[in-house]
Amino acid sequence: MPDFFKFSSINAGVKSPESTRLDLGLIYCEQEAAVAGVFTTNAVKAAPVLIDMDIVRQGKARAILINSGNANACTGENGIQDARRTMQAAARQLRIETDEVIPMSTGVIGERLPAERIEAAVPQLVRNLGDDIDSFAKAILTTDTCTKVSERSVGEATVLGVAKGSGMIAPNMATTLAIVMTDAVATPEQLQQILDNAVKDTFNAISVDGDMSTNDTLILMASQVHQVNPDELDAAVHAVIRDLALMVVRDGEGATKLAEIEVNGAATIESAKTVAMAVAKSPLVKTAIFGEDPNWGRIIAAVGYSGIAIESAGISMHIGDQPVVLAGERHPDYSEDRAHKIMQQHDIKISISVGDGPGSFTAWTTDFSYKYVEINADYRT
Amino acid sequence: MPDFFKFSSINAGVKSPESTRLDLGLIYCEQEAAVAGVFTTNAVKAAPVLIDMDIVRQGKARAILINSGNANACTGENGIQDARRTMQAAARQLRIETDEVIPMSTGVIGERLPAERIEAAVPQLVRNLGDDIDSFAKAILTTDTCTKVSERSVGEATVLGVAKGSGMIAPNMATTLAIVMTDAVATPEQLQQILDNAVKDTFNAISVDGDMSTNDTLILMASQVHQVNPDELDAAVHAVIRDLALMVVRDGEGATKLAEIEVNGAATIESAKTVAMAVAKSPLVKTAIFGEDPNWGRIIAAVGYSGIAIESAGISMHIGDQPVVLAGERHPDYSEDRAHKIMQQHDIKISISVGDGPGSFTAWTTDFSYKYVEINADYRT
Repeated sequence: MPDFFKFSSINAGVKSPESTRLDLGLIYCEQEAAVAGVFTTNAVKAAPVLIDMDIVRQGKARAILINSGNANACTGENGIQDARRTMQAAARQLRIETDEVIPMSTGVIGERLPAERIEAAVPQLVRNLGDDIDSFAKAILTTDTCTKVSERSVGEATVLGVAKGSGMIAPNMATTLAIVMTDAVATPEQLQQILDNAVKDTFNAISVDGDMSTNDTLILMASQVHQVNPDELDAAVHAVIRDLALMVVRDGEGATKLAEIEVNGAATIESAKTVAMAVAKSPLVKTAIFGEDPNWGRIIAAVGYSGIAIESAGISMHIGDQPVVLAGERHPDYSEDRAHKIMQQHDIKISISVGDGPGSFTAWTTDFSYKYVEINADYRT
Repeated sequence: MPDFFKFSSINAGVKSPESTRLDLGLIYCEQEAAVAGVFTTNAVKAAPVLIDMDIVRQGKARAILINSGNANACTGENGIQDARRTMQAAARQLRIETDEVIPMSTGVIGERLPAERIEAAVPQLVRNLGDDIDSFAKAILTTDTCTKVSERSVGEATVLGVAKGSGMIAPNMATTLAIVMTDAVATPEQLQQILDNAVKDTFNAISVDGDMSTNDTLILMASQVHQVNPDELDAAVHAVIRDLALMVVRDGEGATKLAEIEVNGAATIESAKTVAMAVAKSPLVKTAIFGEDPNWGRIIAAVGYSGIAIESAGISMHIGDQPVVLAGERHPDYSEDRAHKIMQQHDIKISISVGDGPGSFTAWTTDFSYKYVEINADYRT
């Protein structure tokens, strides 16, 4: 556990006064922390995202107040006022400045945040502060089926991450919130650089930039206790963020499989990413994975429509260690039986080479199951 | 029925020698027809698409030989040779040139076309030529649940269209094949212009350009009998193509609903299309439509991540005649009960205004159902 960080959680009846689940969490840093963040690129940004972007610009914060059950998105000026009321309540109890409290929200869009119920819960929430990261991790979940926590050591310092996210299966909207804390010494600028670099092949490999929810937020805070090697800090934060991203995919709504899509031989990393994400997002590929069907034609079609310049005859593919496609056609050694057996495993790796360029990228995705439809079609989810 | 066009269909055992369904169709034009075409933009193009692009360049043809059960895609040079063998067989029987036969294929990717079985069926197929468009329309289906035929008169001429397509629900791959025939007089250049214009707000409104299958093909043929007003011909062809496109969406795999997504107020038509297609393709919007859930937050989120510059406060939305969103927030007159009732209808219209620009676009989509997953996850579809 990184020094100076304390956790708390409580039921505040966010979704409705009758709900009894943990739905409000607090992180408090006992001394001023440097802070960095990355946010949704959605043009429609939730109120807390707009507020947090300002706080991150000032580079320091002391607390995070986070609720599930209400996204506080599409709520206009009221949404900003509601969020600020909850920040003020926390700041008052913690005796810090309002702008040192980072608000985060996830849940239903378009309904007013029940600021009064949150305000009423804050005093007890602050009294509860302690080391119970697990309850905090529970309080921020929505359709998640498990908590997501990861920890690494770096010198004398610790990096601790906690996230919520119902996964890649709905890469275009499932809100991801993640907080990474360390007691290492680092400036806001160093933290921002570490964060910008770390998301590229982690959270941005499970969710295309342009496809984020109204609320996606990833905050990195450092409580400035231990001097550590900057490269080691970078590596530890990167590892924690990668863990969290993979936990989010693995817990994808209705997911029964985890598929790693590795693309090599593209002209650039960006081209490789374009191909990998086209395959990772294809409903026909995802239903085939659910059906344990080595339907490589669907994968090739997704490669072809991804939009990058590509020679059909330059494409090859493996599913696991089974050669499937050579020079754009079925591989002479292809065995459908063997490929089907590989598809029956939980973790599946699909490797695609699209030429002899230097660009590589790996994306992660899940399958598209009946359960996914059930979760998302239930009237009033 | 346009003059000079004859139809035929037969079982050729394309998928397997044991199959008994109609799977091979022939259209024969008794005199030389002018021809135009539009094709998949997928970088991976099936063998018949590559051949057809050459034939369309020469501007004339006499016949279309079309099979279901095998896409002849990802089959390399063998695929070209196999297709040419079947073209030669048809040309020999019809006493026309090989390059006057347009091949079209739909079905499984990556397996060799059974050219011998098709060759063997061609003599009887040619003997069967007559007016039975319905059996022809059946022979080209795959997962379709109904045939798709549309007809319009223009002066003394007729425009007749026939299509197969399992719909928008898998916009990124479901193969669409369509043939539109007329006995009007028109040059290949005129036909190409009519076609290029007609697909913009029809087939390209149900399937984004970059997202087509390896086989998508739309051919327009004119047998040069009746002089007609060019604008009226354009309108009639456009109407037939629009009918076919909507039939394809309506028959979407597993579809229980048809949703029209109308976007207004964008800066350009292209921007409006970007927004409409983002909403039309969102799995979360599509599962909400299946669940009859007026979950407008998901629609707003899709508008926001579509990638166009947009002001949250400039967004308004109706579901049917029910106001839902005003200035980016819930409309004061919004009634969830009423919106839910509208969602229970089969045909749903969602109207979104994103500002005060002149750009409008309408897209059509279906819902995402359990049946969709079933159809596409069944091992060896």
